[in-house]
Amino acid sequence: MDNSQTVDVAILGTGPAGLQAAIHAARKKVSVVVLGKEAKSSLFHAHIENFCCMFDVAGDTMLENGRQQAANFGARFLDEDVLAIDPQENGYALKTETGTTFLATALIIATGTQRNRLGVPGEKTLLGKGVSYCVDCDGHFYKGETVAVVGNESAAVDGALTLTEIADKVHLICDKLEVSDHLRDKLDAGTVVVHQGAAVKAIEGENQVERLILASGESLPLTGVFIEQGAKGLLQLATNLGIMLDPEMRYIQTDKQQATNMAGIFAAGDICGPPWQMAKAVGEGCVAGVYAANHAKAKRAAA
Amino acid sequence: MDNSQTVDVAILGTGPAGLQAAIHAARKKVSVVVLGKEAKSSLFHAHIENFCCMFDVAGDTMLENGRQQAANFGARFLDEDVLAIDPQENGYALKTETGTTFLATALIIATGTQRNRLGVPGEKTLLGKGVSYCVDCDGHFYKGETVAVVGNESAAVDGALTLTEIADKVHLICDKLEVSDHLRDKLDAGTVVVHQGAAVKAIEGENQVERLILASGESLPLTGVFIEQGAKGLLQLATNLGIMLDPEMRYIQTDKQQATNMAGIFAAGDICGPPWQMAKAVGEGCVAGVYAANHAKAKRAAA
Repeated sequence: MDNSQTVDVAILGTGPAGLQAAIHAARKKVSVVVLGKEAKSSLFHAHIENFCCMFDVAGDTMLENGRQQAANFGARFLDEDVLAIDPQENGYALKTETGTTFLATALIIATGTQRNRLGVPGEKTLLGKGVSYCVDCDGHFYKGETVAVVGNESAAVDGALTLTEIADKVHLICDKLEVSDHLRDKLDAGTVVVHQGAAVKAIEGENQVERLILASGESLPLTGVFIEQGAKGLLQLATNLGIMLDPEMRYIQTDKQQATNMAGIFAAGDICGPPWQMAKAVGEGCVAGVYAANHAKAKRAAA
Repeated sequence: MDNSQTVDVAILGTGPAGLQAAIHAARKKVSVVVLGKEAKSSLFHAHIENFCCMFDVAGDTMLENGRQQAANFGARFLDEDVLAIDPQENGYALKTETGTTFLATALIIATGTQRNRLGVPGEKTLLGKGVSYCVDCDGHFYKGETVAVVGNESAAVDGALTLTEIADKVHLICDKLEVSDHLRDKLDAGTVVVHQGAAVKAIEGENQVERLILASGESLPLTGVFIEQGAKGLLQLATNLGIMLDPEMRYIQTDKQQATNMAGIFAAGDICGPPWQMAKAVGEGCVAGVYAANHAKAKRAAA
């Protein structure tokens, strides 16, 4: 499927940082596409009372307004996750879950933080001893072994598919899959053992993961458990690209223009660290939008 | 006259950066006073359409809301300017125009930039009705129209070039250009109509800008006038204190926590440099409010 499009600025994330970035970039007369599932922002179910200058507004109303504003200025929205980012000569190629590739001159990462712990016994004690939050980082340790991926969304499905190329057997533990048809077709065509409607009760093992216990009581013998809840972990895409994180490796490091160490890649919002506030996300989104648009324009002028 | 009060966090400035800082500091349960004249924010006469996530709100309504929010969280407002700031052993002494002294543990400077007024008839009465001090904020409204930019420096030339992408015709009114060769070459290569050696005598119009009158008597029919005389900040107090500015000495330099080089002094909003956007001001205000409150709490705990 050769479905490739070019765009000046691609924004990953549909929360307040991504929306404000889209508004400011689109106002600068560059083409803008926003990629990501709408309901994912943690703001969606929130009530906002500390954001200047409005009283007590529902999060979903705010997000809907912001989306409409950005669209009015010309930003396009696509309800899909990005699975891979590859550097190109004049920007970055983004592969989405439906198989489309966007060639973007500038990129803004505004996907928020993933709060993706399962909260089950064994998860914390066996972290780094078979429990991992990053298939791309740790998957290669499991050559010829049996592993499980836990999660409903693109990160989990993509992670499970990746692991089939390494591990001997791959389980996918999911409540209800929420992925594109394209990704689901790939899952169906592969060798992943899908446990739909299942939940994890515990992860067990002495000094290493030995088995996964499902809520049904079923026990799966295995050596690796990958917890991949949420969109494809942008932090892991970022580290693969060579984007610099903070010294504790939790957030993307940016300068005052929200630029990362990689030319043309900007970041905004919770993924850049605390405080976890809508006001801060919106402020960083504004700055990232302006400078990403400037970067794309300068590149275009130089071409 | 011994009228002295102590406060954890003093905020200078009543625009969106100051208000958001007040909201976040007050929520952290420290005492907060906001100093400054209400109507000074450039937002006061503006209409906001690019701030996530709300449609087309009047600036004065926004400021009134923000003030009320901050007050609800416990911030005090005093309608007076600060005339002097003196370092003390555990903070800063702020002397206001009524003679009150506030001993503040932490200080947030959010006074905005002073836009250089032209001081011609029509400038004030037509503000927000075709007269603007910010191409990036308002340029967008002039699609297909005729506009003028007034100024000699890079801000004016850059603004005029930006406007050629939006407006139909762009005049640049300048006494004597003071820009780099690079920018001058771009100006020469573009479509801006440069009136060198010209000066503005008046801006005229009924309820909206209709024409610009030059000192020569020439009348230019147009609908927008952008006064871009380089944002000269009100930075004297800051420089006297030893606060570090950017290399071009125009803005206060801050780190990612909005801290300046002086312990306990933070800054937020336009005084920290472009982009001149409400979203950016609010974001920086949030961050400054949180970290100024933290600083005050830490000092209190150590005392």
